Amino acid sequence: MSDEQITNGGTTVFNLGECRYESPLRIPQFIEEGSGILYDVRLEDLQSSLRAKKEIVAFENAGPRKRIYFNPSETTAAIVTCGGICPGINDVIKSLVVELIDQYGVKRVLGIRYGYEGLIPDYGHRPMELTPLSVSTITHRGGTLLGTSRGLQDPERMVDTLVQNNIDILFTIGGDGTLRGAAAIFDVIRKRDLKISVIGIPKTIDNDIDLIDRTFGFETAVAEATKAVQSAYAEATSFRNGIGLVRVMGRDSGFIAAFAALASNVADFVLVPEVPFVLRGESGLLNRIHAKFTEKRYAVIVVAEGAGQEFFGGGGAVGSQTVNREFGNIGHLLKDEISGYFRELDVPINMKYIDPSYIIRSVEASADDAVFCLMLAQNAVHGGMSGKSGIMVGKWNSFFTFVPIGLAVRKRKRIDPNGYLWSIVREATGQGDLI
Amino acid sequence: MSDEQITNGGTTVFNLGECRYESPLRIPQFIEEGSGILYDVRLEDLQSSLRAKKEIVAFENAGPRKRIYFNPSETTAAIVTCGGICPGINDVIKSLVVELIDQYGVKRVLGIRYGYEGLIPDYGHRPMELTPLSVSTITHRGGTLLGTSRGLQDPERMVDTLVQNNIDILFTIGGDGTLRGAAAIFDVIRKRDLKISVIGIPKTIDNDIDLIDRTFGFETAVAEATKAVQSAYAEATSFRNGIGLVRVMGRDSGFIAAFAALASNVADFVLVPEVPFVLRGESGLLNRIHAKFTEKRYAVIVVAEGAGQEFFGGGGAVGSQTVNREFGNIGHLLKDEISGYFRELDVPINMKYIDPSYIIRSVEASADDAVFCLMLAQNAVHGGMSGKSGIMVGKWNSFFTFVPIGLAVRKRKRIDPNGYLWSIVREATGQGDLI
Amino acid sequence: MSDEQITNGGTTVFNLGECRYESPLRIPQFIEEGSGILYDVRLEDLQSSLRAKKEIVAFENAGPRKRIYFNPSETTAAIVTCGGICPGINDVIKSLVVELIDQYGVKRVLGIRYGYEGLIPDYGHRPMELTPLSVSTITHRGGTLLGTSRGLQDPERMVDTLVQNNIDILFTIGGDGTLRGAAAIFDVIRKRDLKISVIGIPKTIDNDIDLIDRTFGFETAVAEATKAVQSAYAEATSFRNGIGLVRVMGRDSGFIAAFAALASNVADFVLVPEVPFVLRGESGLLNRIHAKFTEKRYAVIVVAEGAGQEFFGGGGAVGSQTVNREFGNIGHLLKDEISGYFRELDVPINMKYIDPSYIIRSVEASADDAVFCLMLAQNAVHGGMSGKSGIMVGKWNSFFTFVPIGLAVRKRKRIDPNGYLWSIVREATGQGDLI
Amino acid sequence: MSDEQITNGGTTVFNLGECRYESPLRIPQFIEEGSGILYDVRLEDLQSSLRAKKEIVAFENAGPRKRIYFNPSETTAAIVTCGGICPGINDVIKSLVVELIDQYGVKRVLGIRYGYEGLIPDYGHRPMELTPLSVSTITHRGGTLLGTSRGLQDPERMVDTLVQNNIDILFTIGGDGTLRGAAAIFDVIRKRDLKISVIGIPKTIDNDIDLIDRTFGFETAVAEATKAVQSAYAEATSFRNGIGLVRVMGRDSGFIAAFAALASNVADFVLVPEVPFVLRGESGLLNRIHAKFTEKRYAVIVVAEGAGQEFFGGGGAVGSQTVNREFGNIGHLLKDEISGYFRELDVPINMKYIDPSYIIRSVEASADDAVFCLMLAQNAVHGGMSGKSGIMVGKWNSFFTFVPIGLAVRKRKRIDPNGYLWSIVREATGQGDLI
Repeated sequence: MSDEQITNGGTTVFNLGECRYESPLRIPQFIEEGSGILYDVRLEDLQSSLRAKKEIVAFENAGPRKRIYFNPSETTAAIVTCGGICPGINDVIKSLVVELIDQYGVKRVLGIRYGYEGLIPDYGHRPMELTPLSVSTITHRGGTLLGTSRGLQDPERMVDTLVQNNIDILFTIGGDGTLRGAAAIFDVIRKRDLKISVIGIPKTIDNDIDLIDRTFGFETAVAEATKAVQSAYAEATSFRNGIGLVRVMGRDSGFIAAFAALASNVADFVLVPEVPFVLRGESGLLNRIHAKFTEKRYAVIVVAEGAGQEFFGGGGAVGSQTVNREFGNIGHLLKDEISGYFRELDVPINMKYIDPSYIIRSVEASADDAVFCLMLAQNAVHGGMSGKSGIMVGKWNSFFTFVPIGLAVRKRKRIDPNGYLWSIVREATGQGDLI
Repeated sequence: MSDEQITNGGTTVFNLGECRYESPLRIPQFIEEGSGILYDVRLEDLQSSLRAKKEIVAFENAGPRKRIYFNPSETTAAIVTCGGICPGINDVIKSLVVELIDQYGVKRVLGIRYGYEGLIPDYGHRPMELTPLSVSTITHRGGTLLGTSRGLQDPERMVDTLVQNNIDILFTIGGDGTLRGAAAIFDVIRKRDLKISVIGIPKTIDNDIDLIDRTFGFETAVAEATKAVQSAYAEATSFRNGIGLVRVMGRDSGFIAAFAALASNVADFVLVPEVPFVLRGESGLLNRIHAKFTEKRYAVIVVAEGAGQEFFGGGGAVGSQTVNREFGNIGHLLKDEISGYFRELDVPINMKYIDPSYIIRSVEASADDAVFCLMLAQNAVHGGMSGKSGIMVGKWNSFFTFVPIGLAVRKRKRIDPNGYLWSIVREATGQGDLI
Repeated sequence: MSDEQITNGGTTVFNLGECRYESPLRIPQFIEEGSGILYDVRLEDLQSSLRAKKEIVAFENAGPRKRIYFNPSETTAAIVTCGGICPGINDVIKSLVVELIDQYGVKRVLGIRYGYEGLIPDYGHRPMELTPLSVSTITHRGGTLLGTSRGLQDPERMVDTLVQNNIDILFTIGGDGTLRGAAAIFDVIRKRDLKISVIGIPKTIDNDIDLIDRTFGFETAVAEATKAVQSAYAEATSFRNGIGLVRVMGRDSGFIAAFAALASNVADFVLVPEVPFVLRGESGLLNRIHAKFTEKRYAVIVVAEGAGQEFFGGGGAVGSQTVNREFGNIGHLLKDEISGYFRELDVPINMKYIDPSYIIRSVEASADDAVFCLMLAQNAVHGGMSGKSGIMVGKWNSFFTFVPIGLAVRKRKRIDPNGYLWSIVREATGQGDLI
Repeated sequence: MSDEQITNGGTTVFNLGECRYESPLRIPQFIEEGSGILYDVRLEDLQSSLRAKKEIVAFENAGPRKRIYFNPSETTAAIVTCGGICPGINDVIKSLVVELIDQYGVKRVLGIRYGYEGLIPDYGHRPMELTPLSVSTITHRGGTLLGTSRGLQDPERMVDTLVQNNIDILFTIGGDGTLRGAAAIFDVIRKRDLKISVIGIPKTIDNDIDLIDRTFGFETAVAEATKAVQSAYAEATSFRNGIGLVRVMGRDSGFIAAFAALASNVADFVLVPEVPFVLRGESGLLNRIHAKFTEKRYAVIVVAEGAGQEFFGGGGAVGSQTVNREFGNIGHLLKDEISGYFRELDVPINMKYIDPSYIIRSVEASADDAVFCLMLAQNAVHGGMSGKSGIMVGKWNSFFTFVPIGLAVRKRKRIDPNGYLWSIVREATGQGDLI
């Protein structure tokens, strides 16, 4: 094997230029440029790649660099938060500010208000100055100190605002859409040959961003979702033919549903976007719930919001209903279908429908998530200060990484119906195939 | 003043007969028969009653009696839980069983399944035997071990079941309807001149049973509801024109809404059944929310499920809508009305609607509620063993009391719009009059 | 009975003078001067008092007055926190500030630093200005924003400081010692004929202040202590001859120990200052622990810090040890005695000693305590603004009261070994008499 | 590179023999024998290994096998828990039982009582039969259902017991010492050529077992320890010259101390076994605490129990004290040293010492730990049923692995003073070098 074989599958990170300043950090060890973290850790894959002389993909190892690109005393950074809220956003904001100002000594940190809207002057949202003192207690409250909004704005005009405010580094905290926005901003910056770094910090409570082991807030969200499933269980078991139905977040992936079911260990059915199911028929969900009544008089169901979207498709028939919506509320549909089914059968039921989504999103980050947010934020600052741009901070195989945004948004992480996680969900619930 | 003046306003408790057995409890002090707890503690009311020679109302002081009616070694007790679930039911069940068997030494305790249904053989719910061991760990789970159901059953047939199972004391855990059921059973028992004691333990998460300072689970429920209000606040403040709308339990009274608003201290509007409000007009809710946007860009609203029921009245018009439902979902109505109002005004809003009801109901009881449940249950057993019947165990001015059920269900406890609690809610929210 | 009979047992509250200003509060109902809350609610006591023509004791009903003494726009208030910390202090501070400034419109609120030290210029602690904004998020953190200290300072010099800072109302948050300090300040003020109001807000995590049903933070403390007892249970049951020993706060009273034992329902022995016990001898604690090993292989013990202080008395013998300390650590003593005893017997044990005191003191107030703190603070402000002085805000039989400080510090509230609470602790633990 | 180069550094797993039975699991994918997980994921290490033709180390990939060694219907498994308790033990026990009986259909599962003692008949601890029903609610309580003990027993006699009870698979849940015990049992089994599988499930709250990313309960422990640090902060900031001193678990490693400090973000000093520090001198701890008083009037210190053990060494002098203990209580030493130092300087301080160790150990596992315990247990069962023996179940780079026990206990995982974790602790605390 030659060294050339070890290429990177598009993982090369863009750099603004030569790092002319020495890092002010007083730490014993810096990360060498060129350090990489292997993408695939399975021995058999490595062997076959080597044999086939295929490239070995690795991500750039994050962490502090000995030499940095920006002169801290002249640097202005900005932070923007976009999309929905999730536990830990304020932890990330606080750690960014503390790392930038207390550790690197940057001049100024601006908080952009209400997402990308705050980069368009027409909205009239003035940025707020952020200091270690002003953010010292924000981690106790949920949501985002800066405010957020959904949707993209014109990248050209956003870059104009960055220039007008002398912003050298822009940290974007957000999900898939936000990262695409960051990529668009990055493209305009490159086109104009500006020396502005754009660093994405991935945020999605659904844990479905690719190339990062886990997103911040996910673990906290699972803990809250687990409580909701336990409530559903208490309700279901307290009534004859009790049904506890919990709808949790997860548009494209069912990670929260799956983990909350495993953690609570009381779910009978877990429905996720990745695994199709039917309602009617012998092995359909409705009949299977009925069977649970005979067996133990209750049933607990956890459904991810993106599950069963085919029931809302154009002209598709759901039971007797024909519905046609863009993104349907599967919780309400199941509630109606289940009620209707047992009404037809004249079997009295007691259904309790719980949707804890907004409660889950807004709680304080757990201790573990707090540490994770701190580490993510520090690495984002390391990346920005060393002049990397157009990257997302990831975590892969226990190491923090810098990943080109384009690579990160190529696809979403999803549950593999043939993989390990779904196997144990099936074992834990005993639900079998609902088709 | 003569002693006769001190009568009891219908507070006299019915006794099955002479107490011929000595209490097996080894405690230094028993409560004397005739000990009473004053209903009204205001000095000025006492003075005017004395002057007007009006009766002074007092409740019978609960607690253990030196002599008891039932011979423990021959006594069978039964426990039934009815209506919705609330935190602490299993604590009450456990303490009843432990007090009956370990302290008094009764022969047998039966758990009636699925509420009053379990007293009608047709349903086929066999009672379960309860022992201190079998209930030792049930306090960690929410709901009711015994199962519950709503609605009353035929009192004659329920008494038949009591007789067939040799039940001497029936403990009913439930709310207003359950207490009325217990009263009906008590009437049949008296009519038939049976020696069966019926003891009601009041349960309502809404805290709206009269003649008891607080119902068990209420405090735990408020703590959980407070978290939901804090979530609504995190959501509302994270978005421009953010609205956090939380619907909590409270059909006839707004105690949970009021206490959660005070505890969280972040609500802008609290809507309760006791205080009418309008949606439209200058001081209507919708306009007032709009004013909040100008002032601080968000608003948090807590609504009790029974608030604004007049909007669902026959032919009544709500905004432009005409609705006609028996018990309307005020949360959904507000959501629709608020959305419509701001859509009309072309003001973009971000509304998050949270209904934490089932989560609140099913959590483990707080430490304070756990102690309260223990004390309620012990006093219920003291009452039953000493042959009292047709009573509810209450707590009044720091003392536990025995209150004739008929008195307890005469009316519901409600927030006084001119009283202290509502004053401080108004102060805390600054909401003024919404009419 | 004549009206004269209803006197007040020293409950008359001192007033600074005529109330010449109208309350700015916009509430439907004010409390009339002269409204009183009965001290004793037992019917039989009322009857015998009336017959014996003895006085009927009542406390002044707290709450807002229609007319007030101070002109808000010219009023300066100050807040001082003394003694140990407990959950809810920051809630009280916040609510005092908000009520004073937002509701009454007072000019200025000063926070005195580090307890009574802050009223003595020599210490150099400058007071801090408090505003609704500056206190808006302090309730999420434990401890006291203002800092605290123990011990009294010279009342004459403290009053000098009040005068120099134009302070019209002083709110002191603290326990027995703090209230005595407030009484001393009040005396100097009266001697000098100053128009300064002194209002005490009772704080003691031990719940042992007389004439108040419960002190703030107690309930939260019990919840935390309960967790520690559950930990002790998990430890004890996991090892053969496991002993879980938990020492909780309570120098003069064992309320926390008793309630935590009842809430957890797993304690075998509860040791409190009010009930003496012996270590050696057949019914001594050590032998009784030994008996538990035979019965179930473990034992859980909850001890209040003030229990067994007789073991530390001059020349007193504890087992084989003679000790002589002012206030001994009963936890350490028990640990040593138990270890020694079983070592002598050659019985291997596994003892785990837990002292959760500082964890208990410093947590965030529970929702219920938060509401209680709010109400206490509001009533303190009502009292101060209406020119009352030398009073403590209490709560009695569901009403808030104004109680002359001298009356409140006459004695401490303690567990009655012959009363109801101790009876149920004995029942719950089955510990019997340890003498 | 040739395939031979990829050897395994002693990672080859021992197998009892040929797998003659088909797995009863109904899952879409099984793990192929020979699947491996790379030990080192750094690209540069891989490159240099390849160039130097050094072996590439990989662990056996855990997970279910298509063919298994034991015939489930004839298989008896046993579970033993040893050493101290930590969150999640009961989760592991429950999941082992459920996986063995409900998924694989094994005949019988025995719970060995009180650690390895339970395998020595002389102690008289009879094993308990475990069923899915009997373990269904144990996850809500801390500790271990089975009881535990410390120390090893005679491996020959323990194997005798396994044989006498027809035990085919022994699951040992415990730390370093327990794994060494399991290795000793495994050696005897091999020597006697018995067909008994020994599977170790690593348990150490300190997270210091090598070759596993994280041990179960660690995350829960950090969350509890974080609360204690926050309490110390509330105490320290409430008093002038307040010192909050928290001692947490960690004999050989300071992971809990480090993570709790990062999660709480309020520690000024973190002291761990891996990093030496001095007390006296200009950059000694005592002087540095003093400096904090000038800067901000308080200091928060988190110390792992194994830190500063050199102060207890033979003849070593600590300040003025000479101490000589085997394993000294560094918390008490620091408390004394700090008190003495400031007494000498006549600087009044307020120190609060918190040791939350037993509380941390005994709480319920967090949702995330619950899922981790479930997965660990399932993989342990997969390993045992497929006839692997002498292994520990690990987790490495997101995959579960089977690691020869001998390899796992070669050394302990420790914080690298020059590594990433310690760098960020230093940044977060600003503590610099204390030498």
